[in-house]
Amino acid sequence: MQEVYINLGIRSYSIYVDTGLLPRLGEYLKVFKLTPRVLLITNPVVGSLYGAVAETALMNAGFEVIRAEIPDGEEYKNLATAEKLYDLAYTRELDRRSPVVALGGGVVGDLAGFVAATYLRGVPFIQVPTTLLAQVDSSVGGKVAVNHPRGKNIIGAFYQPRLVLADLDVLKTLDLREVRAGLAEVIKYGVIADRAFFVWLEENLERLLALEAEPLAHAVAASCRIKARVVQEDETEQGRRAILNFGHTLGHALEALTGYTAYRHGEAVAMGMAAAARLAVALGMFPEGDAVRVINLIRRAGLPVEIPPELSTGDLVASMRRDKKVLAGRLTFVLPVEIGRVEIVRDVPEEAVGRVLRLCYN
Amino acid sequence: MQEVYINLGIRSYSIYVDTGLLPRLGEYLKVFKLTPRVLLITNPVVGSLYGAVAETALMNAGFEVIRAEIPDGEEYKNLATAEKLYDLAYTRELDRRSPVVALGGGVVGDLAGFVAATYLRGVPFIQVPTTLLAQVDSSVGGKVAVNHPRGKNIIGAFYQPRLVLADLDVLKTLDLREVRAGLAEVIKYGVIADRAFFVWLEENLERLLALEAEPLAHAVAASCRIKARVVQEDETEQGRRAILNFGHTLGHALEALTGYTAYRHGEAVAMGMAAAARLAVALGMFPEGDAVRVINLIRRAGLPVEIPPELSTGDLVASMRRDKKVLAGRLTFVLPVEIGRVEIVRDVPEEAVGRVLRLCYN
Repeated sequence: MQEVYINLGIRSYSIYVDTGLLPRLGEYLKVFKLTPRVLLITNPVVGSLYGAVAETALMNAGFEVIRAEIPDGEEYKNLATAEKLYDLAYTRELDRRSPVVALGGGVVGDLAGFVAATYLRGVPFIQVPTTLLAQVDSSVGGKVAVNHPRGKNIIGAFYQPRLVLADLDVLKTLDLREVRAGLAEVIKYGVIADRAFFVWLEENLERLLALEAEPLAHAVAASCRIKARVVQEDETEQGRRAILNFGHTLGHALEALTGYTAYRHGEAVAMGMAAAARLAVALGMFPEGDAVRVINLIRRAGLPVEIPPELSTGDLVASMRRDKKVLAGRLTFVLPVEIGRVEIVRDVPEEAVGRVLRLCYN
Repeated sequence: MQEVYINLGIRSYSIYVDTGLLPRLGEYLKVFKLTPRVLLITNPVVGSLYGAVAETALMNAGFEVIRAEIPDGEEYKNLATAEKLYDLAYTRELDRRSPVVALGGGVVGDLAGFVAATYLRGVPFIQVPTTLLAQVDSSVGGKVAVNHPRGKNIIGAFYQPRLVLADLDVLKTLDLREVRAGLAEVIKYGVIADRAFFVWLEENLERLLALEAEPLAHAVAASCRIKARVVQEDETEQGRRAILNFGHTLGHALEALTGYTAYRHGEAVAMGMAAAARLAVALGMFPEGDAVRVINLIRRAGLPVEIPPELSTGDLVASMRRDKKVLAGRLTFVLPVEIGRVEIVRDVPEEAVGRVLRLCYN
């Protein structure tokens, strides 16, 4: 088993990465000082696959389980769904030490985390991420949120979980498309912070796509460690943490303009990383050969590297100006200077962005 | 001028207590690293009295003001009103360094604080409390929240302001009833933590009711200092901080059962403190003579000390069992052992609570 310890003072916690963790969920929870009623939040698909295993594990450890299934999809990650969960929690008399367990992908984790952060001003939060993306991304960083009708993750908080169980077994039931989307974030960690890990990914990509347990455990734990290193230095995103948004400025715009339904988050980030690599080359700060390696690895993972022609450059730029990371209307990008190192570049001229974006269409 | 420094590490801030502060709001804000657009949240009454002064002060310091007025009353302190504010903030492109300024009493402060805590995962929050209650209570502690249809402050967070300006001039336009309600919390601080302050209140109560600036500044600053001492030891209410809830277990139940409209918060707390004093006497832990002094001071402030007959003991006990502070269904009270010292008493027998409550009706 790999353990990744996230050192955040009194908010520190561990991520366990291994096979066979879900059936032991109850045991892991027992070490905390909790009241026995657990709110287990999942979605219908994950619930039908793993809900019973989770419930049995919790009940065998003496917990009483209240299960809530929320509809799948970013469009349900909103205040209306959160209100239904507050209602359930209040009706079932959950108290300040009643844990909220998120069993699912990013949508479940973000929404359950937002409810855990705000119900009674915060209750214990446990994550059991069931997608590769959620295991390498949502499980570190404490970002929880719901969407605003016009913008993703506009309403949220920084709230750390008490525990994350990344069970590699549950990835076996993922669509290959979901696995590929998760690999986008894995590749991101290599590009932003760890050249050796990027090279390892170039060598082991096919084994990851085949979900081999040993390389998968390495990739998940390494990704979490890289993210943890960045987050520990800057818990509430005042500065350096923004490097994690490599590929996300354009990625969020692509998701927003397509109503969060056309692309998986990882697919949008893949296109965003490819565009950022091209933009960095155009600004003369990143060698063209390195951009080719980055784009090739993304493409080998089966991910898109070009923007579909129906999305106009003008609309994309307008949408990027609305990003949370934008301060006083200035376009900010995270751009690579070499594989393994990125810079936060503020005030990127809109003209250069538009010019590069126009080269990114297929 | 009195300055109360709230020491919470990187979340530290100052409360300034003085006359003439509101016209200098803009100057005070200028020392922070903010973008120029300010969301000023107030209600129609406070807005008509002080909105223009606040706006002018901000504009003179170079800020652009977006003013939002929310309806007055606990019944509007909900997610629906918060959504309108998110909407406005998003539409007007407020960013992570755009401050939210709360100009008003507890409802405005709680709601504006919740929006500041959750919009873009947290933006700078400034409080200008305009009631005595808000100056002595809401300005320390970082508790922000909205109400759930069936419970007060069920959805919230711990989120510290960057600055609090307690301008004593704005108290002059308060109803006497509001001043009395604020004094309930001031008396609370004497009872829970400072016998000398309680004695000072016995000697100066009439000067406070007359809003004399010098004793008022002392009472506000002393109250904030007492609350700060408690909060600094226990920022997220894991233990000792609960002593601040003296009078609140019953007080919240009284408010909930009357739909938050019959009583001011301070009035409900006044009845709750009187009942808690009687309960402590009945449990043999508090001298009867001290209870008489506490109840007399509350009564001298023009506050109620008896429960109205239309509220049944059974309904009150049932409502108290739903309090946020209740863990695993056990009734918890903060009870005095002497004037200036209280204990948190868990597992108070419902029978004793009922018996004492029945003595509290007029």
